[in-house]
Amino acid sequence: MLQLFRYNWMVRDEWFQLCRQIPTDELLRERIGGAGSILYTLFHILDVEYSWLRGIQEKPDIQVEFEDYKSIQQLQELSDTWRAELEPYLEAWTSSLDHEAAKVPWATGQYTKGEIVRHVIAHEIHHMGQLSIWARELGLRPVSANVIGRGLFKQEG
Amino acid sequence: MLQLFRYNWMVRDEWFQLCRQIPTDELLRERIGGAGSILYTLFHILDVEYSWLRGIQEKPDIQVEFEDYKSIQQLQELSDTWRAELEPYLEAWTSSLDHEAAKVPWATGQYTKGEIVRHVIAHEIHHMGQLSIWARELGLRPVSANVIGRGLFKQEG
Repeated sequence: MLQLFRYNWMVRDEWFQLCRQIPTDELLRERIGGAGSILYTLFHILDVEYSWLRGIQEKPDIQVEFEDYKSIQQLQELSDTWRAELEPYLEAWTSSLDHEAAKVPWATGQYTKGEIVRHVIAHEIHHMGQLSIWARELGLRPVSANVIGRGLFKQEG
Repeated sequence: MLQLFRYNWMVRDEWFQLCRQIPTDELLRERIGGAGSILYTLFHILDVEYSWLRGIQEKPDIQVEFEDYKSIQQLQELSDTWRAELEPYLEAWTSSLDHEAAKVPWATGQYTKGEIVRHVIAHEIHHMGQLSIWARELGLRPVSANVIGRGLFKQEG
């Protein structure tokens, strides 16, 4: 499980890097589909990951406002801070948690913790796919979505 | 691991269903970014999944041509056939395979089997994110990317 979070975080950092060359008005431009703008999509990814992963730890939800994070620099810092908080929980993850019930205040459904961590993983990958289209529309080469070739997995022997 | 494949297959079937209402010229229209067209993206997803998952089983690669699968009906049938072949392998998957070395004829790198199955999962989610943008551009509501709420996970007790 941890490897796919590490993958997402690596890809996210590469997107932050790429976005530094995009003018602010393009980062904030409302686009068709997805979460709206490039910058808001990045904010939304952080927010969803942090909320759900705190939720399954039964920690209270922390509300943040996009208005306060409208630059790549601010988002990168928020991402770094939240990641540092979440990483130990994910490092300690075992498959025994997969079927444990999770209840979060903002959703009525009954979910398992395994379901939620996979939801968070897929959520980021999905939105990064949307960013890749918008990057091409801006004439930029998107960040690679490859999981392979990132040195995330060690071989036996 | 299996649950994220089941998620991808469920989402894929929903995309096949949605795409039945899109005219063929729109399905085949070259778009900016991604793999090119909606139909080719779906073909590419199937092809990548099948090739890598046969590859790590050390089965010979089977080449198929997009020219032969240029309709949703044909792609759905191909998807059903390949999925039926791949599912038993993924059902029998255990984490002991994660660090086993895998070598496929079309790639020079040394990968692990766990790395490749995660690559295949992320690959499909990424491309589905691209399809979601194109669907909105066509005025359609995209298939939900949610992992939660699909009944894929059983709770304890």
